[in-house]
Amino acid sequence: MTFSNHFKIGFNVHISKNVKIGNNSVIDSNVVIYDNVQIGENCFVRSGVVLGELNHTEILVKSKPRMTIIGDNSIIGSGTIVYSGTVIGSNFRSGNHTVVREDTIIGDNCSIGTFSDIQGRLRIGNHVRIHSNCFIPEGTMIEDFVWIYPSVTITNDLYPPHGVIKPVLIKSYAQVGAGSVVLPGVIIGNNSFAAAGSVVTKNVDSFMVVMGSPARVYCDIRELRGLNEEVLYPWKDFLTSNRGFPWEK
Amino acid sequence: MTFSNHFKIGFNVHISKNVKIGNNSVIDSNVVIYDNVQIGENCFVRSGVVLGELNHTEILVKSKPRMTIIGDNSIIGSGTIVYSGTVIGSNFRSGNHTVVREDTIIGDNCSIGTFSDIQGRLRIGNHVRIHSNCFIPEGTMIEDFVWIYPSVTITNDLYPPHGVIKPVLIKSYAQVGAGSVVLPGVIIGNNSFAAAGSVVTKNVDSFMVVMGSPARVYCDIRELRGLNEEVLYPWKDFLTSNRGFPWEK
Amino acid sequence: MTFSNHFKIGFNVHISKNVKIGNNSVIDSNVVIYDNVQIGENCFVRSGVVLGELNHTEILVKSKPRMTIIGDNSIIGSGTIVYSGTVIGSNFRSGNHTVVREDTIIGDNCSIGTFSDIQGRLRIGNHVRIHSNCFIPEGTMIEDFVWIYPSVTITNDLYPPHGVIKPVLIKSYAQVGAGSVVLPGVIIGNNSFAAAGSVVTKNVDSFMVVMGSPARVYCDIRELRGLNEEVLYPWKDFLTSNRGFPWEK
Repeated sequence: MTFSNHFKIGFNVHISKNVKIGNNSVIDSNVVIYDNVQIGENCFVRSGVVLGELNHTEILVKSKPRMTIIGDNSIIGSGTIVYSGTVIGSNFRSGNHTVVREDTIIGDNCSIGTFSDIQGRLRIGNHVRIHSNCFIPEGTMIEDFVWIYPSVTITNDLYPPHGVIKPVLIKSYAQVGAGSVVLPGVIIGNNSFAAAGSVVTKNVDSFMVVMGSPARVYCDIRELRGLNEEVLYPWKDFLTSNRGFPWEK
Repeated sequence: MTFSNHFKIGFNVHISKNVKIGNNSVIDSNVVIYDNVQIGENCFVRSGVVLGELNHTEILVKSKPRMTIIGDNSIIGSGTIVYSGTVIGSNFRSGNHTVVREDTIIGDNCSIGTFSDIQGRLRIGNHVRIHSNCFIPEGTMIEDFVWIYPSVTITNDLYPPHGVIKPVLIKSYAQVGAGSVVLPGVIIGNNSFAAAGSVVTKNVDSFMVVMGSPARVYCDIRELRGLNEEVLYPWKDFLTSNRGFPWEK
Repeated sequence: MTFSNHFKIGFNVHISKNVKIGNNSVIDSNVVIYDNVQIGENCFVRSGVVLGELNHTEILVKSKPRMTIIGDNSIIGSGTIVYSGTVIGSNFRSGNHTVVREDTIIGDNCSIGTFSDIQGRLRIGNHVRIHSNCFIPEGTMIEDFVWIYPSVTITNDLYPPHGVIKPVLIKSYAQVGAGSVVLPGVIIGNNSFAAAGSVVTKNVDSFMVVMGSPARVYCDIRELRGLNEEVLYPWKDFLTSNRGFPWEK
């Protein structure tokens, strides 16, 4: 076990073998850290978090835990569970009771909200925001600067339950509105937007706004106007609060 | 720290500074109570609950925790997390793993179900029931005697992700059916009903029943008839089980 | 308390009265087991699990906990809460933070996913898979070999909030697609399929595929063809991965 000289630890924390915790990191009460977890500098691991969890099959066959990495300056919200083999970049944020399953690769500056279930064996880019209560299955590919709003359900099984997996691809700057469902194999194009409550059954072309059940094209996102007829896109030019995007620096 | 003479406490409970716990209250195992939490009389705080949690930004900047209040006769379900600055009235019930974020004001006789995420900085009236798996964002205004059924997603961002917040207002005696999505800025009128699976994109007038995606008016709620042609509204006259409403006393 | 000679136990585990734990079972850290819980052989009860929980009313009136049973070879995922009086068969799996309320009867070889809320007083058959983030209310009847995909919401209250309960019945080999909502009293027939995002307002006949909001019949499931024009049903003949079904042995 390699501990830095300077990290703080709460009550009832259990840390297993070969765990590294960076300088100035804080591990709060009731945290369980299993083997081979590496936590960066300036991190907060909040109460009741579990890191390096093995999945059920691995427990049964007594698999050796893989390396699990949490990048610098990350905050892991209370009750979050991160499984073994997952690698998360710097400046990560999770909500409460968030679950990130095994062998997931998450870039820098991402956040995943409360009650979201990231099912593992998938890839999330940089600057991605997944809000509360989302379900993201195995194989899903999420590029950079994607926003997924609350209660979105992504699927992956083309003819369930045959297990013919056709993952969803969500391309850069795309947004998926609250409560939407995305069917297997769908490609959601760059800068597109699926409005809240959409059931997305077909590919969405770049810049298209879709809505409805099933979702149909409503307009080009570049035509959208705000309350005062202002042009709304590209949305990154209009971010008014600090959400950690590079153009805000 | 001011403790009453008569409260019971479980195993592995950590209680921070300036915490008050009322008479006859019970704190179960693995509970964490941070600074400045005040729990009323006759409360049950069940296992694994966290009270007075700071949000991620507050942790980073080392904010001083505000007062967090749980009213008399409340039961906080196992795994619930209540953030700092939230004030909850008497006779409150939460489910399991419920999250109530910071600076939320909740009246008396409310309940919030399992896996519901109350995002904070919002106001909930009296006698409100929010069922399991709901998402209620910042700014939402919920009046008295409102029922929100399972898996409802409320939104608030008019042109996401610009952060132009237009909160939803749900007026007294309204009901929002299971699995519904409510768009930003929508006003759901008194005594109205959005049926299960609705995507509510426009205001709902008082007494209107709406359904579908997008939701359209189906009838006036006063025209609704039950299986035996009985008039169903006002629904409060037909409550047969004890759900704690004043007219049942 | 009757403990077998051979079970392992983690840190900070609290075990109440009249608890039985079978041979070769493992109880991980921060687990709370209340009175009258019986755990079979070769089980894993993972970190932060609560077993034998009383509901809020029972806590208030100081009910005596009923017998709670977890069958042999089961794995209870971290953060799961199982209430008093629930009886679960062998080879059970739960996800993370799963909630199974009181007096639920679950057969053998079932799994219930992360963030699913099984509301109690209901019956689930054998070989049933309920995925993540589902809501299953009281009274729901689920027969054998049923698959319920992520984020499905079942309802039961015919004229909410009157409490006129008309439970949903899901018959053997039926499948309910991701994000679907099922209205009270609906019967989902044998071998039928509600596609992802359906709002199921009427009974679904055996073998029918339905989709949309409201859901309408799309075809007979026996007419469905795959990417290479192959017949897809009965789906059980096409399962390629080991999911524990008897015909795979």
